[in-house]
Amino acid sequence: MNRHLLQLSIISFAGLITLLMSSTNPVKGQKSQPNIIIIFADDLGYGDLSCYGHPTIITPQLDKMAYEGQKWTNFYVAASVCTPSRAGLLTGRYPVRSGMCSDKSRVLFPNSTGGIPQNEITIAEQLKNAGYTTAAVGKWHLGHRKEFLPTNNGFDSYFGIPYSNDMDRKKPKEISRKEVFWEAKSEYFNVPLLKDEAEYERPANQETLTKRYNEAAVSFIKENKDKPFFLYLAHNLPHVPLFASKEMLGKSKRGLFGDVVQEIDHGVGQIMEALKETGLDENTLVVFTSDNGPWLSYEDHGGSAGLLHDGKGTTWEGGMRVPAIFWWPGKVKPAVVDQMGSTLDLFNICSNLAGIEMPVDRIMDGYDLSPVLLDLVQSPREELYYYRGTSIYAARKGPYKLHYITETEYTKDNNKIVHEKPLLYNVEVDPSEKYNIADEFPEVVEAIDLMVKQHKAKVVPVKDQLAERIKKNK
Amino acid sequence: MNRHLLQLSIISFAGLITLLMSSTNPVKGQKSQPNIIIIFADDLGYGDLSCYGHPTIITPQLDKMAYEGQKWTNFYVAASVCTPSRAGLLTGRYPVRSGMCSDKSRVLFPNSTGGIPQNEITIAEQLKNAGYTTAAVGKWHLGHRKEFLPTNNGFDSYFGIPYSNDMDRKKPKEISRKEVFWEAKSEYFNVPLLKDEAEYERPANQETLTKRYNEAAVSFIKENKDKPFFLYLAHNLPHVPLFASKEMLGKSKRGLFGDVVQEIDHGVGQIMEALKETGLDENTLVVFTSDNGPWLSYEDHGGSAGLLHDGKGTTWEGGMRVPAIFWWPGKVKPAVVDQMGSTLDLFNICSNLAGIEMPVDRIMDGYDLSPVLLDLVQSPREELYYYRGTSIYAARKGPYKLHYITETEYTKDNNKIVHEKPLLYNVEVDPSEKYNIADEFPEVVEAIDLMVKQHKAKVVPVKDQLAERIKKNK
Repeated sequence: MNRHLLQLSIISFAGLITLLMSSTNPVKGQKSQPNIIIIFADDLGYGDLSCYGHPTIITPQLDKMAYEGQKWTNFYVAASVCTPSRAGLLTGRYPVRSGMCSDKSRVLFPNSTGGIPQNEITIAEQLKNAGYTTAAVGKWHLGHRKEFLPTNNGFDSYFGIPYSNDMDRKKPKEISRKEVFWEAKSEYFNVPLLKDEAEYERPANQETLTKRYNEAAVSFIKENKDKPFFLYLAHNLPHVPLFASKEMLGKSKRGLFGDVVQEIDHGVGQIMEALKETGLDENTLVVFTSDNGPWLSYEDHGGSAGLLHDGKGTTWEGGMRVPAIFWWPGKVKPAVVDQMGSTLDLFNICSNLAGIEMPVDRIMDGYDLSPVLLDLVQSPREELYYYRGTSIYAARKGPYKLHYITETEYTKDNNKIVHEKPLLYNVEVDPSEKYNIADEFPEVVEAIDLMVKQHKAKVVPVKDQLAERIKKNK
Repeated sequence: MNRHLLQLSIISFAGLITLLMSSTNPVKGQKSQPNIIIIFADDLGYGDLSCYGHPTIITPQLDKMAYEGQKWTNFYVAASVCTPSRAGLLTGRYPVRSGMCSDKSRVLFPNSTGGIPQNEITIAEQLKNAGYTTAAVGKWHLGHRKEFLPTNNGFDSYFGIPYSNDMDRKKPKEISRKEVFWEAKSEYFNVPLLKDEAEYERPANQETLTKRYNEAAVSFIKENKDKPFFLYLAHNLPHVPLFASKEMLGKSKRGLFGDVVQEIDHGVGQIMEALKETGLDENTLVVFTSDNGPWLSYEDHGGSAGLLHDGKGTTWEGGMRVPAIFWWPGKVKPAVVDQMGSTLDLFNICSNLAGIEMPVDRIMDGYDLSPVLLDLVQSPREELYYYRGTSIYAARKGPYKLHYITETEYTKDNNKIVHEKPLLYNVEVDPSEKYNIADEFPEVVEAIDLMVKQHKAKVVPVKDQLAERIKKNK
């Protein structure tokens, strides 16, 4: 049986997919609604799992998920840094629509005052309306003031660090900048660990963080086995500083970065085990992905984008294409899927599976990929916009990607290039973006140009949520 | 069950492994001897299969083999170009010992006069002595004069092109050098297709070549189901010029290169199917690997080394580390194996499984990896020498690799660098060879230096088989 064979006859289902699509089968709160678990890693690159080709990070649980489910190889995030990427996933909208990206600040910081606007609808709010019990475990990074926290954005409960694990730095003077990361201690980073809205531990003990997140996820599953639930498990790691629990240290030949990823993988195994124990595995969709590419400037403490170019913070493929695995035994058809998908699509997928209508009062940027998951038909996603801050640096249409601006992560190198003549790559034939073919395909350049103009015309300026920060000496 | 979990307790079995090792269980010609199939791709890079992370080359059959068997991630060839790599695999000895590498010619050409010396023992000769029926299908490239052909080197039969598929060029004047490859026709390459020692077709119709090789392999299996057999299926492709059969054209989003690899994958499926049909699957070891890294100068007609540096013709990891999959249902323990292995080890593995003693009259360079295959113990291979021609450019000991000389494929760029201070990388932590750590680990540099000296002391000069070529106007 050619279980992975993906040479699909292209089935048109334009009529099937509309932004207003609703499925009327499942009834609110009923058992037919599947549970949904999204496991979201931080700064894990396209090449950092063994099923995506890493030679010394061995991830048997994710490999199993990938083999039994769908491994997507052209799956993108909404932005190549934390805050906007997470906003895109949870709202199903490019972060430029919610003000959760900025040209003044890449992400939210502990002294930022903004966060996710109240009028945005998160996946959690959407699923809560459909009768789901909802929990967020892990990194939030969509605002740490009370009104922005998970419990005010559709989650019944929260346990985690509200921003990045390298923030609130308390570096002793005698420690070098490098040692802070390469010989990291939890006390160098005075980040709070919250339970719902209250401070539970500060500084968070990061050595046991991944382990505790995994445990919290398993507990939530076991406690909610009788009603539909949504679990958003957003690991703070493998973002620097890297920490792993004692049991995992030295397990990977890749070094500490590998140990950290393998601890996340270990947790994936615990979650799959809990689903089997509770008999929920055949009624639960598990999604695993990452918020952006590897943070290459951290050298061996950063990950790898595999054969893709560059990493986190950039609009090259390495910055925005990530591992993405969908698992739901008996439902998700096993395959390697080389069609396009995005974290922007999770809102639609979840809404459809839960049987709840999509919002009609706003522009949504996702597509419902559930027909691909369940029936291996053609993906409805044909385009993607690669934002950096509020600017479109590149756009993809079918196999082609057009770069208007390129810039590596190191802005200090002043390497931003605005291309008078944009660069065109066929990222299916040339995934490493080596061969500019703009001169050979002027009609493609023109078509993407038109697409971008049409997209921009529908972007309405909103308040920049990332710009305002309280001065440090206050 | 942690079926892929590879955190092995290190079992010492120094006493178990010796160069003179012999297993006395199987008896010559008896059914307990497993069949052995080696499938060898040409210029397929580390990153060119979906199970090694390629996003648009979808290889479900090899993915299945990898998941059900062992996927090795630190597996090396004996040289980064065809002739010496193949000599290394078939003899279990570095090609410098047989004269099958040279500083005057990278490989054998149609006007070369040399070939594999008669005193070398091939795997086929070894297995034939153990009662096996043996066949070679595909590329040979160890000499095309009669005495050097497969049928004079242990194979009962041969069907294939005796060297590379881009040789014997007959380029029409009006065709550019690029068109010869990008719009290739079989008649541009007047290569012979041999049956045993006789010319069967010339020029070989390359469009149907992979398909015919796959069919020949399946026929051989079905015809020999009652006796132990050894099949060496060495595809000419995806070496340039690329050709695929009509049924496979356009199947891969990666373009023609992807179609070609997917046709090889398709053949792997046919072979596995034939093994199941004949009931031989539980008595057959199937090995899949490649002769060297991707030929990067052929751009989208060359492959990808994934996260590894550089490609074919070089001693960077991308040139010499290749995909390697071992499959034998019920025997090979499923795992991702991040230990070291080499095509040099196949001679030992085959000898042990066939129950025949290793040669004692010569230096052998392989290790018996069958304990790793069958019981997932620690690999006996701890070192590797990266030869280019007859020179050691680099050496690996444990996780460390020391480069004495680096040089990309393009020798015309005169980019050969003899490092006064050799470069040291930890290729487990840093598989992309980015961070030179020689200054931090002088004791490792010293230990590898000593190891290389000891190795060199045991290399005896022999006749260069590649140097002599008949002048073209003769």
